[in-house]
Amino acid sequence: MGILVVGSIALDRVETPFGSREEVLGGSCPYFVVVASLYAPVYMVSVVGTDFPQAHLDFFRSRKIDLRGLQVVPGKTLRWAGRYGHDLADAETLATELNVLGDFHPIIPDDFRHVPYVFLANIDPDLQIEILSQMQAPRLVVLDSMNYWMIHKRDSLQKAISRVHVVLLNESEVRLFSGESNIIAGARAILSLGPKALVIKRGEHGAMLLISQGQGIDLFMVPAFPVENVVDPTGAGDTFAAGFMGYLAKTGDLSMASLRRAVVHGTLVASFTVQDFSIDRLRPLTLADIEACYSTFRWMTHFEPLSDLEVNRLSRPIWA
Amino acid sequence: MGILVVGSIALDRVETPFGSREEVLGGSCPYFVVVASLYAPVYMVSVVGTDFPQAHLDFFRSRKIDLRGLQVVPGKTLRWAGRYGHDLADAETLATELNVLGDFHPIIPDDFRHVPYVFLANIDPDLQIEILSQMQAPRLVVLDSMNYWMIHKRDSLQKAISRVHVVLLNESEVRLFSGESNIIAGARAILSLGPKALVIKRGEHGAMLLISQGQGIDLFMVPAFPVENVVDPTGAGDTFAAGFMGYLAKTGDLSMASLRRAVVHGTLVASFTVQDFSIDRLRPLTLADIEACYSTFRWMTHFEPLSDLEVNRLSRPIWA
Repeated sequence: MGILVVGSIALDRVETPFGSREEVLGGSCPYFVVVASLYAPVYMVSVVGTDFPQAHLDFFRSRKIDLRGLQVVPGKTLRWAGRYGHDLADAETLATELNVLGDFHPIIPDDFRHVPYVFLANIDPDLQIEILSQMQAPRLVVLDSMNYWMIHKRDSLQKAISRVHVVLLNESEVRLFSGESNIIAGARAILSLGPKALVIKRGEHGAMLLISQGQGIDLFMVPAFPVENVVDPTGAGDTFAAGFMGYLAKTGDLSMASLRRAVVHGTLVASFTVQDFSIDRLRPLTLADIEACYSTFRWMTHFEPLSDLEVNRLSRPIWA
Repeated sequence: MGILVVGSIALDRVETPFGSREEVLGGSCPYFVVVASLYAPVYMVSVVGTDFPQAHLDFFRSRKIDLRGLQVVPGKTLRWAGRYGHDLADAETLATELNVLGDFHPIIPDDFRHVPYVFLANIDPDLQIEILSQMQAPRLVVLDSMNYWMIHKRDSLQKAISRVHVVLLNESEVRLFSGESNIIAGARAILSLGPKALVIKRGEHGAMLLISQGQGIDLFMVPAFPVENVVDPTGAGDTFAAGFMGYLAKTGDLSMASLRRAVVHGTLVASFTVQDFSIDRLRPLTLADIEACYSTFRWMTHFEPLSDLEVNRLSRPIWA
């Protein structure tokens, strides 16, 4: 089943302790689609300027990514420049030139409006709401955001969050948006707005999945796959989203067990992403590579089976 | 089956952002025995001065901890003072007065020499070697150490490590001792000295178990149990060791599967330790509390069962 993604396309300048790159493919969409297209057909809605290199468009086409929602408009493509320190934690943004993204209003082609899996990548929450109003009863909507919108468009973001099934954030975003220093308390506040689940990305420390269960929360935790050679963390979050949604779209299974496995796919795919600049490590990646990594990881993290009763409980659908 | 522990007993002064305590029970032995005695009979070899409060001795006796190896000598008990910053990471040592520990030479009572499980807590590696020479073919010897011995008694520590089954260290100790910045490369260097397994304690990020397998390493990773109220991290490592060895001594099972579960017991017990000062959170703790936590944690971390073949592979003994 298909996945629709709406987000940015950029040309990035990145500096890390291991080198730097200029005018490389970046933005949430390219990271997302290169991975998601391994799992399912992808429908991309975004904008680039007329300066956008043909080679990148050819690459998207080689993956059978539907580009009818990609607007090519006069002007320059979004530029982003960032720098990472030795701990490779959050990037310091050196420059952002919105260019054609400044006037972007996503138009969902008619043929895309029934796509059942929707990823609202990190963009203005008002645009995220515009997109949702154009979609027809999607089965799963996942939303990403960032600190900028939490500070400058809090009400819109709150409204957007109340309309999606799953929110993907990192730990500091959970704390910022909820105003809670404790991550579980913060998760509770976010889930009270309406989403069924919250995925908290923890970088080298893995991820957590918190599913709303009546008055309580079902908590799942997974460590990160150990990576010996982190080169550039850019895009880890977008590819996490792609592994997560890709797995769910491919299986069509929205049980608790499936969401847990989807989180594992997200963490594994992110661990590939950070091993090279831009999407370079992801270009040759296959689903078989991810599945081999999954199998290794399953072995590396197992210590005790569940009972049949528990397995049964995990396999129930979370929502229709 | 019994567990012998040789280590320090101290009276601590601790400062954390959440308060401070003076003259509270500390040192590796008290933290270890309060937990290990929940799993198995414990034989404690250590030293205190004549100033050591009777109430603490009474507490040890209430747990049926064999104190015939505890030397009470004229002079003052070891004093340690430390401070933790807001991240509650490594303590800054404010003062250490060795007192009676300065002249300590552990004498293992004859009745203790056949105890099959031996924990060499963090003390001078020359003493660790003295102890081993007094023991008769223990089934499992686990060694803890610290940066001080890695710098000042490297050769002795290397010799001690070569004679034990399992080494317990934290990430920075692995890097310091091995000279490798990559943790897996560091683990390989330590395992090449002779131990069958290395457990790497990662604090709030959980733990790793690396088991030597011919030319390779079998890697197991587990996240930490989420704790909302960390008060004082002192003793987390010693109680990790106690949960780890306690589980192995109680089950008598030295398979890979059992070592993995033992690591989980270690992480869970450590998560209780940090919730209060000194051993205060551990005094009321029962094995049933740990098992309930284990059951919750198993649910929280499960995403995919292993095959029967894999379960079988995990259940083979690692050493005789």
